[in-house]
Amino acid sequence: MINSRYIAVDWGTSHLRAYLCQIQCDQQAQVGLQVVLQDQAAGPGVGKRNTDFAQTLQQAIAPWLAEFGNLPVLLAGQIGSSIGWHETAYLPCPIVPQQILGNGFKFSYAEMQLTILPGLCCRLASQQFDVMRGEELQILGFLQLNPQFRQGEHLLCLPGTHTKWVLLRDGVIEYFKTAMTGELYDLLSRHSVLIQQPCPPEQLDWTAFTQGSDFTLTADAGNLVHGLFSVRTRQLFGGENSVQACSYLSGMLIGSDVRAALHATDWQLNADSSVVVIGGYPLLDCFSRVLQAVGIEPTMADVTTCTLRGFATEFLFQQQPQQQHNPTCPDLA
Amino acid sequence: MINSRYIAVDWGTSHLRAYLCQIQCDQQAQVGLQVVLQDQAAGPGVGKRNTDFAQTLQQAIAPWLAEFGNLPVLLAGQIGSSIGWHETAYLPCPIVPQQILGNGFKFSYAEMQLTILPGLCCRLASQQFDVMRGEELQILGFLQLNPQFRQGEHLLCLPGTHTKWVLLRDGVIEYFKTAMTGELYDLLSRHSVLIQQPCPPEQLDWTAFTQGSDFTLTADAGNLVHGLFSVRTRQLFGGENSVQACSYLSGMLIGSDVRAALHATDWQLNADSSVVVIGGYPLLDCFSRVLQAVGIEPTMADVTTCTLRGFATEFLFQQQPQQQHNPTCPDLA
Repeated sequence: MINSRYIAVDWGTSHLRAYLCQIQCDQQAQVGLQVVLQDQAAGPGVGKRNTDFAQTLQQAIAPWLAEFGNLPVLLAGQIGSSIGWHETAYLPCPIVPQQILGNGFKFSYAEMQLTILPGLCCRLASQQFDVMRGEELQILGFLQLNPQFRQGEHLLCLPGTHTKWVLLRDGVIEYFKTAMTGELYDLLSRHSVLIQQPCPPEQLDWTAFTQGSDFTLTADAGNLVHGLFSVRTRQLFGGENSVQACSYLSGMLIGSDVRAALHATDWQLNADSSVVVIGGYPLLDCFSRVLQAVGIEPTMADVTTCTLRGFATEFLFQQQPQQQHNPTCPDLA
Repeated sequence: MINSRYIAVDWGTSHLRAYLCQIQCDQQAQVGLQVVLQDQAAGPGVGKRNTDFAQTLQQAIAPWLAEFGNLPVLLAGQIGSSIGWHETAYLPCPIVPQQILGNGFKFSYAEMQLTILPGLCCRLASQQFDVMRGEELQILGFLQLNPQFRQGEHLLCLPGTHTKWVLLRDGVIEYFKTAMTGELYDLLSRHSVLIQQPCPPEQLDWTAFTQGSDFTLTADAGNLVHGLFSVRTRQLFGGENSVQACSYLSGMLIGSDVRAALHATDWQLNADSSVVVIGGYPLLDCFSRVLQAVGIEPTMADVTTCTLRGFATEFLFQQQPQQQHNPTCPDLA
């Protein structure tokens, strides 16, 4: 008999997102495997200095432990990096996402049984290395939910603090690249001379956003570094308010990111390659609009759904005596 | 009779730099005009939030006021911007630098007689506006010291928190562009996930610097935004220390800046255009090395010398009954 309840923690640079999950499965009704999200909690990301990881986690999940006892805790993201709690491996590409299953670092803390999942690394044609932590789990979940994407070539875009662009060929992650887009936005909107008033979160002026993305989508080499200052001059001379200025800045950064991904020398996209954006509001919408502006109609997937399905796959893998890389409905009897 | 002593304050985004200056002039010995720097002081820049400008200035220059009474105080830089003490005009380009003389905002504070100099603005071919404050005074001083540069076409590079690239044709400032290079370096080296250990100031690893500048000088469009993350992966996989990582980051940013300036669509450089870098250690050296890497031998000028000469020119202009745009040795008798 499987204890079908567990805690999944997506712990990145900027945010801790904890989920109380339960597997549901009705084979008779052929509903198949479902991940039921019972509760969620938030906390500070790994990038916040001087974080006591154990204490931060316990604060986030204390009500669940009090109610259900010590549930298994699965963690993914920067929490497994050199700036995290325990450093876990980077599995090398090319790799099938299922290969991350069972390769986490298991340890106990205050009666909790924890697993920090590994990340991925790759070496690009430029001989630069790249790394990811957390996004591989989203890709795993996306492919469990959308098995048709295990065939053909797809460029996956996973926006966040660091945008990951991933080349997937026939279900294999071949390469990926990291863009600092989200972190640059955060630094420039909060700490630079470009924005004088704090930006209201989640407010977007799409006209200003599109002007920003048009600028960098069509610009010459280097126009991002020379163009950023226009965020300030548009406020000085164009009367823009802070929502418009932040939206324009966001558009510039995402336009530059999309342009670099589509013109990367690290891969040659096929004419029939598709683009998939795995994200949440508002970045899913932002990246999709910019891709549409250059004639690409991306497949859009919700990042939380993919993340939870990825964690569920790892949870089921750990529970099954004969561990399968494509776990299906377990026997919950 | 002229009081030949005054206080010059270069007050930018990052730093206040105050100088106690005296004009010396020996027409009989044909030495001509000399600016003698008698003392200097420092303080926080305009970009530091919640600065009391009057108090900050008084703290910096109190010993000089105590010794010499209320000397004239000339100020230039972001102190005249919308985030400064009193906003002064942006004079439009094209413009001859001498036209800034006598156009400052004069006011009194606690018995001090202050003048905040105006800035410049221009509209580029892209219809983007750009602005500068302080660099126009450096250019004025440079041209006073090097009148031969009033002929021909010269691309001036003024590195700092914001690099200014200025197209000078026959002594006229035609256009200029701002790059966020220095501020990006500051944000990324101190507040991002790229650098884990604080960088020791003024330490540079030239090998890592050159690897960074080579990367962005030769890279495709957008490779800065996609390349920055290699600052982190080189530490993870290449064993780089923080001095190397910071130097590599600096090289990437300056390489991208130089490449964008030389390939800007906002101007077409002539084959016989020269490049002038007006800066201080270490940026003067950094930008000159990157220019040399692409086959350009720049003229190098010390920024403090140029700044002081610019302030001296404004001071003399204010003192002379018949104000001349190219003030020469005054009658100090």
